[in-house]
Amino acid sequence: MADHEANAVPVLRWAEPPEGPVVVLLDQTRLPLEEAECVCTDVPALVAAIRSLTVRGAPLLGVVGAYGVALAAARGFDVRDAADQLARARPTAVNLGYGVRRVQAVHERVLDAGAGRERAAAEALAEARAVHREEVEAGAAMGEHGWALLRELQPGGSLRVLTHCNTGTLVCGGEGTALAVVKAAHRAGELRRLWVDETRPLLQGSRLTAWEASRAGMPYSVLPDNAAGSLFAAGEVDAVVIGADRIAADGSVANKIGSYPLAVLARYHHVPFLVVAPLSTVDLATADGSGIEVEQRADHEVTEPTGGARVAPLGAQAYNPAFDVTPPELVTAIVTESGVVSPVTGEGLADLCHRSRTRASRTGNGMMNA
Amino acid sequence: MADHEANAVPVLRWAEPPEGPVVVLLDQTRLPLEEAECVCTDVPALVAAIRSLTVRGAPLLGVVGAYGVALAAARGFDVRDAADQLARARPTAVNLGYGVRRVQAVHERVLDAGAGRERAAAEALAEARAVHREEVEAGAAMGEHGWALLRELQPGGSLRVLTHCNTGTLVCGGEGTALAVVKAAHRAGELRRLWVDETRPLLQGSRLTAWEASRAGMPYSVLPDNAAGSLFAAGEVDAVVIGADRIAADGSVANKIGSYPLAVLARYHHVPFLVVAPLSTVDLATADGSGIEVEQRADHEVTEPTGGARVAPLGAQAYNPAFDVTPPELVTAIVTESGVVSPVTGEGLADLCHRSRTRASRTGNGMMNA
Repeated sequence: MADHEANAVPVLRWAEPPEGPVVVLLDQTRLPLEEAECVCTDVPALVAAIRSLTVRGAPLLGVVGAYGVALAAARGFDVRDAADQLARARPTAVNLGYGVRRVQAVHERVLDAGAGRERAAAEALAEARAVHREEVEAGAAMGEHGWALLRELQPGGSLRVLTHCNTGTLVCGGEGTALAVVKAAHRAGELRRLWVDETRPLLQGSRLTAWEASRAGMPYSVLPDNAAGSLFAAGEVDAVVIGADRIAADGSVANKIGSYPLAVLARYHHVPFLVVAPLSTVDLATADGSGIEVEQRADHEVTEPTGGARVAPLGAQAYNPAFDVTPPELVTAIVTESGVVSPVTGEGLADLCHRSRTRASRTGNGMMNA
Repeated sequence: MADHEANAVPVLRWAEPPEGPVVVLLDQTRLPLEEAECVCTDVPALVAAIRSLTVRGAPLLGVVGAYGVALAAARGFDVRDAADQLARARPTAVNLGYGVRRVQAVHERVLDAGAGRERAAAEALAEARAVHREEVEAGAAMGEHGWALLRELQPGGSLRVLTHCNTGTLVCGGEGTALAVVKAAHRAGELRRLWVDETRPLLQGSRLTAWEASRAGMPYSVLPDNAAGSLFAAGEVDAVVIGADRIAADGSVANKIGSYPLAVLARYHHVPFLVVAPLSTVDLATADGSGIEVEQRADHEVTEPTGGARVAPLGAQAYNPAFDVTPPELVTAIVTESGVVSPVTGEGLADLCHRSRTRASRTGNGMMNA
């Protein structure tokens, strides 16, 4: 077990108590007030945990799906039925289906080859562990590439990094994407402060990123998103490091609402703006930012800020897009597990994807988050 | 009574029921969920209302203070003691002391001239009404000047205006500052939409501006502050119109946190950025933005968003400045009750202040919010 695993938040783990194997999840709905674990002994429990957002984050769902199939195999449930239930637990998480099908395929292959159920279950678990390990490795690789780039861009060290939303262990199983870079800087003793945008309307920054920062012992402060401008103006930001939900072929970056204003502020103040995301986030089928459909979410997330008390007048409409699109010319670099694209151009991005896919097919590894 | 008074929110009024005169306040702590009035029959009740933020907003406090002294005079309380209590009710509201002392001076002058208590009380009330009327007139003048400017800048009409914080009747007694301009556009049938920044951390936008917009029948939407960038990118903002807490001699504008990022976004997208404030907001003794001290407010406003449930981890620090400073080069125009400064330069601002003060001393009117 590598150091980063030993220190990692136990966001998800496989355990084998005397009563039989279980998947143990950190209950994300109770963070940061409580660090409670949810022990799943069967597939319906895992499906319920996925639906209730006890476990969330697209890459992490892939890992959960993988372990879910392994759990069904180990406990002697109907594996195909389990895989179908898990894959359907949430409709939009591509990664969930990927993790599920990958382990299911191994399980069936082993059975088809004539091995017994016990052997097939062991191989399924090994594959689930591989999915998990690859996720951890991708996070570590993004962290290293991003930190190397940061050092190059800001050689003075002692960095003040601004981030937005949650991009850490809680969504990735590994160290995360943008937050993996911040963790690398912190391990190197070069993180002077992490500025954590609270990230309205759902407050993933103050709830989740702050919790990860706190656990990692980082110096950090939470701020209202609209206070970032003052930090830039005061020269208190050395780099902005964020994740991505989707990256178009031209390098346009769709990410949590509030990312684009940071990009404009960063440009105005000549501060590097880094996007950290696995290559699976790159969608070469979408030509540019105009092709990215932006989900409009419910009014009540804005008009009833914490899900309870109404704040705005009855009948108030809200403008509540889930994410925004930053054009490539405002992005200093895109950092992936396979390397860095900078300057950000469609050619550079296509080239990195091509090289990475060639390498993956040569080594027999699929893409992690496809 | 002018039209704008008849239509105005009854945020504060003098009434004379059979039981004796009273000052009636709209209870701002219960907005927007309830429109409740608070009837004050004596000075301690008014002081309590001021302290509890039942009534708030610096210019409006000047009007309350003025009526408070008139109330003491009308009810036969010790006027000097009442004036002292009122002036001390909140320490930082300069306007409060201004309104109080102005009415107190009239009351004493009339008594010193040998008139009876009834006559002195009537003159005090007349002076309080004058303070109120001047506030209303200033709002109307800002609205007219700002709307004329907007029409000039965006002659196409059918405007989408973005605003931040609350700058309306609720803080001014009259139509407000920035919101007075929006109201003028709406009356002219040229407001396509008012974009209301919710204004974290205290949500004055979604609580108060949305309430005023709703009452005025404006088409409006509330948005998380960090979603404004998407509106600019989509070409959905024709102008930004905000107020000011203080304007330095060079035209630097201190206003509610989140104003500066809007100014940067407006510049990046070539959208006019207007600041609307009475001349009393101009502080010629402060040379530039670097001389403006920014109040840092309590962590809990950020870490416990609605004053109740904690969101961030225990021990989380917050960066929570109350306002930010926008340099003059990002401000298209400063709109005051006495006219417009554009482009925004120290010379232009000094000139307008000088002309206005000369005029005021000629007509015998003091500055309203001095």
